Amino acid sequence: MKFGGTSVADLDRIRAVAERVRIERDKGHQVAVVVSAMAGVTNRMVGYCHSLDPVADPREYDAVVASGEQVTSGLTAIALQKLGVAARSWQGWQIPLRTDDAHGKARIDAVEGAALIAAMEAGEVPVIAGFQGIAPDGRISTLGRGGSDTSAVAVAAAVRADRCDIYTDVDGIYTTDPRIVKKARKLERVAFEEMLELASVGAKVLQTRSVGLALKEKVRVRVLSSFEPETERCGSLVVDEDEIMENEVVTGIAYSTDEPKISIRDIPDRPGIAAAIFTPLARAHVNVDMIVQSTGADGMTNLTFTVGKADRARALDVLEACREDISYGELQTADDVVKISVVGIGMRSHTGIASTMFQTLADRGINVQVISTSEIKISVLIDSEYTELAMRALHTAYGLDAV
Amino acid sequence: MKFGGTSVADLDRIRAVAERVRIERDKGHQVAVVVSAMAGVTNRMVGYCHSLDPVADPREYDAVVASGEQVTSGLTAIALQKLGVAARSWQGWQIPLRTDDAHGKARIDAVEGAALIAAMEAGEVPVIAGFQGIAPDGRISTLGRGGSDTSAVAVAAAVRADRCDIYTDVDGIYTTDPRIVKKARKLERVAFEEMLELASVGAKVLQTRSVGLALKEKVRVRVLSSFEPETERCGSLVVDEDEIMENEVVTGIAYSTDEPKISIRDIPDRPGIAAAIFTPLARAHVNVDMIVQSTGADGMTNLTFTVGKADRARALDVLEACREDISYGELQTADDVVKISVVGIGMRSHTGIASTMFQTLADRGINVQVISTSEIKISVLIDSEYTELAMRALHTAYGLDAV
Repeated sequence: MKFGGTSVADLDRIRAVAERVRIERDKGHQVAVVVSAMAGVTNRMVGYCHSLDPVADPREYDAVVASGEQVTSGLTAIALQKLGVAARSWQGWQIPLRTDDAHGKARIDAVEGAALIAAMEAGEVPVIAGFQGIAPDGRISTLGRGGSDTSAVAVAAAVRADRCDIYTDVDGIYTTDPRIVKKARKLERVAFEEMLELASVGAKVLQTRSVGLALKEKVRVRVLSSFEPETERCGSLVVDEDEIMENEVVTGIAYSTDEPKISIRDIPDRPGIAAAIFTPLARAHVNVDMIVQSTGADGMTNLTFTVGKADRARALDVLEACREDISYGELQTADDVVKISVVGIGMRSHTGIASTMFQTLADRGINVQVISTSEIKISVLIDSEYTELAMRALHTAYGLDAV
Repeated sequence: MKFGGTSVADLDRIRAVAERVRIERDKGHQVAVVVSAMAGVTNRMVGYCHSLDPVADPREYDAVVASGEQVTSGLTAIALQKLGVAARSWQGWQIPLRTDDAHGKARIDAVEGAALIAAMEAGEVPVIAGFQGIAPDGRISTLGRGGSDTSAVAVAAAVRADRCDIYTDVDGIYTTDPRIVKKARKLERVAFEEMLELASVGAKVLQTRSVGLALKEKVRVRVLSSFEPETERCGSLVVDEDEIMENEVVTGIAYSTDEPKISIRDIPDRPGIAAAIFTPLARAHVNVDMIVQSTGADGMTNLTFTVGKADRARALDVLEACREDISYGELQTADDVVKISVVGIGMRSHTGIASTMFQTLADRGINVQVISTSEIKISVLIDSEYTELAMRALHTAYGLDAV
């Protein structure tokens, strides 16, 4: 059972978390708990570090920032004991949860489950400080923002848990963003691969890394709200696709406004021109996503692609630097675009998914600027003014509307 | 260099601490730093624990409360690095600083100095989280309130430091409380034994445990203010008595209002009566301090003694329980008393110290209720109304007044 920052935001909520754990334990389950820092604490600690030094030593940053989870793990253990549930806190270095040495954004190398399993078999609930581990240098490491989800999945794998329940402030995974599409429907089950695509394109319920780890370790993940009573069918399960009997063709629709478009116009079309552009971008660690090439007049070609918002300035620097080399015409950039993706395992065995998408958008007069596809996803780049219209239309077109 | 909670209360003060460390390092010294939690943080953490459970598991309490020093050690290391001083934080478990298993009020068993010495020889300043260590069970332990002073002395001993500088919010150790006696004088040097007596009777500059450890390990301690510029003669040195050339006969005058008086009247005087009273008190862990026995009329005796404020209720319970057994008359208790002590190594070789005390008090019409003496201390119990008058008179009588 993993509880995020809003679920342990104050002492009353920590008491409520303990009560939830007690109920699960009383059902006869062995339970391990992973907790985040109290909401706001991590930001305060990050603020302290960066005030002292914007490029603070990540090893010291980790020692400071990891203190938040240390506090909630101890407090949650106390709250459990108060309810008569044997419990103890575990810091990353005590388990140990071993990471690599990339302080501030460490990756988990191994979680030793033996001590946690022994504790549970002795009737004790381990309460694990999320987000942190111990690096090869013997110092505290943190997994980067949102890393507590990843901690939880890694611990679940290490103790061979039946399920990893992620308690958060939403009650599950929806077919799309309910703030935009009122008829969004909660999914009972989602396949790992679908969740990966949905998470990476903007459905921020679960950290992408945690889903990747869940897929690799085959850890069944349940997402549910810590603010609603637990019922038989609450939350959403993220599982192996084999566990989903009837795959929907399309499971969800995601969107992302974080990927500006860059267009290079009037490039003399010659062999190797794409490599001449994308190789220097890759060297500068610019992550290029959707790409379209179009031919203009008099043998010139145009290239349009999207990059992550954080990479845009660097991308433009790189392109300016090779302007003479490539002798292109104009360099344009636009923020007023949105990437809309339809995702579904069922696409593998169904056809016509893309044409439904294009037809639906065309019927509303929405122009598709760039298209990209993967085995279980189709994405289009459109004018951001049409975001809501497009999402609602697609939601209906793929039969996702709640009844 | 040890910095208390008010010295690291915010980021500006942490920057000032780093600057002080840099100056010492630039003088060519090897420096290790011990820090407390930011002022107020420990109280907040203690409050969290006790809100959840007034008798919270001390192991969890320790995990929660020790987070404060973890944060300041990391922040101070960042501030030092920002000034170009190589530095790293050390948690208790990383050094390791080993304690016994008395969580919440652990005693230090051993500090392994090797890693800290190696770091300093490599030009790095270790910044150690005070107040905490690792218990035999592999869990975080804390040394109890004020334990950071003890951490500092233990670390100083482990790295064979020339000196342990305790930075606090007063600029040294005074002959007496300057709030009461305006002519109080800062002492340049105090012997460990004197400091022990002064600390235990109420001069709360240094935690008594830390002075005891300094005496045992022969660690020279300097007490100085972190809010005043460092000069040649700033602060006070606590040293072995051999380092003090000319001992003053009386070094300081302390007072304590925390020890109420208990009187048992009209006890039938027979052999073994004192044992019949003090043995059950000792069994109940009541710490009895000053004792006087006086004979009343018709073969009856009276006993008066002082106990720590926290022990009073327990002491009265014990005495009520043996009332029939001893068949004493009345049981009285009084809060309006103060213990005033004159302390000085020089007493060992001088006479007339007590008579000066009694004469001085008698001249002011102050009645002495109880007297106790040790090799380097004379204490009297008087009516608390006379506290200031008595202290000022004694301060002058022993030639302690500043010129």
